[in-house]
Amino acid sequence: MSAGPLPPAYLLSALAHLQETPPGNRPHVTLTYAQSLDAKIAGQHGKQLILSGKESMIMTHWMRTLHDGIMIGVGTAVNDDPQLNTRHLPPRFDHIHHPLPRPIILDPTLRLSPTCKLLNNYRANTGRQPWVLCSPPEQGDDRAHWQQRHQKLSQAGASIIELEQPSQRHFPSFHPCSHNPHPFFSHILPVSAVLQKLSSLGIKSLMVEGGARIINSFLQASLSTPLIDALIVTVAPTLIGTDGVSYSSAIPTHIPTLQHLDTQVVGPDAVIILKPSK
Amino acid sequence: MSAGPLPPAYLLSALAHLQETPPGNRPHVTLTYAQSLDAKIAGQHGKQLILSGKESMIMTHWMRTLHDGIMIGVGTAVNDDPQLNTRHLPPRFDHIHHPLPRPIILDPTLRLSPTCKLLNNYRANTGRQPWVLCSPPEQGDDRAHWQQRHQKLSQAGASIIELEQPSQRHFPSFHPCSHNPHPFFSHILPVSAVLQKLSSLGIKSLMVEGGARIINSFLQASLSTPLIDALIVTVAPTLIGTDGVSYSSAIPTHIPTLQHLDTQVVGPDAVIILKPSK
Repeated sequence: MSAGPLPPAYLLSALAHLQETPPGNRPHVTLTYAQSLDAKIAGQHGKQLILSGKESMIMTHWMRTLHDGIMIGVGTAVNDDPQLNTRHLPPRFDHIHHPLPRPIILDPTLRLSPTCKLLNNYRANTGRQPWVLCSPPEQGDDRAHWQQRHQKLSQAGASIIELEQPSQRHFPSFHPCSHNPHPFFSHILPVSAVLQKLSSLGIKSLMVEGGARIINSFLQASLSTPLIDALIVTVAPTLIGTDGVSYSSAIPTHIPTLQHLDTQVVGPDAVIILKPSK
Repeated sequence: MSAGPLPPAYLLSALAHLQETPPGNRPHVTLTYAQSLDAKIAGQHGKQLILSGKESMIMTHWMRTLHDGIMIGVGTAVNDDPQLNTRHLPPRFDHIHHPLPRPIILDPTLRLSPTCKLLNNYRANTGRQPWVLCSPPEQGDDRAHWQQRHQKLSQAGASIIELEQPSQRHFPSFHPCSHNPHPFFSHILPVSAVLQKLSSLGIKSLMVEGGARIINSFLQASLSTPLIDALIVTVAPTLIGTDGVSYSSAIPTHIPTLQHLDTQVVGPDAVIILKPSK
């Protein structure tokens, strides 16, 4: 007997590959975000926009139940203070909670607030322990400040995972700090190293929710190596204008490996699904 | 008996207002364009992209049958050399041609080629006479060159309609020349003056197809005055990247008067329809 209700059939179909063994050295990656018609994913200075309707938000929560981990950048974590859970889903018949993905925050310099909802929920036993992926500075004052922040976040419940700064600067890489003029040259966490680390920690499927720089990093990384196993974009029927934050600023050309799979009208939104061509 | 086949029902429903008397001093305006997921409407340097699939291209051709006029900027006319006709539609049962909208080109400085398809089709009796809306320079060398171009285009079959340069610079305005760093300060054709002129010439319904500057002009104009009676956007499931041409660069904020009406999946594309709130 089904513990139903179940995720929408089109979503199960688009993500059927999650049942398979992931590619070597990385989890299955689903890149997903909500955008306006004019391809903005946030308001002025990264301010959160509630773009998607209730129906597609529920679709996103179903998607969360299908993945081991859910990743965001620290910019999104600070601006939106999200919970990354499945609270909008109808309860299961067997009263067991829907599976919750592991919250994973890309936070090279440990800017996350110890009082954010993700940590509060973990301490209140209503959320899984967040993993904070960071890159320790090598020496000096930076190191002392970083250790203080490390201690506070650990005390607040975060599991802090250190990735060494690569000795050679790799492209592409994550840089979730939104005010740095050189996003790829300081405090970087290379995409491949992050995915390899998560894979070694048992994450077989990863949902990547943004913000703009992480979306860009993944799109850019996909130009050289196939990294995105599904791209699921919710398009809200609204125009945001120039003040909004765009993505796709780091891909100089279209990504030929991503092909259209399906488009669904979900409430007022269009959900557009692309997958790698076989 | 119907002369069918007919336009799709959702399109007839979205454009039902075209049966009504237009607002004072202007035609009904339908702003429509095809974009990529990342809101690009053209490739590098305005190069034409075939974004929409066959099915939504047919939808666009049905839309053309419902309007008196179809307007583009001269940048689009030069880059794409479009025909703006209804050639992809299935033939009518009564063998009468589908109604063709009047091609209208916003071309302040008369850059249109006398050998473009629109003029060729008119001379071959397979297209209606194009109207070229321009703004004559006041004096000097510019004026002499302009008169030469005027003569060549007239000889090629264009009906050239002169709009006087406004004595005071009005905002917003059209500036279809893509290489001008001050798009709103030279060779301008104010939106309101253009619409008023077309209304006086009997155009009761106008379909505006782009490119980016004309889309921007209409969106920007709509911030102060309701000018768009329907916004119909075809979203193709592809990412173009930074080299592509964006629109919405002139709207500093969202347009609160445009509300979602309908979304349809048309072939691989999503067709998203917005209308003014009542």
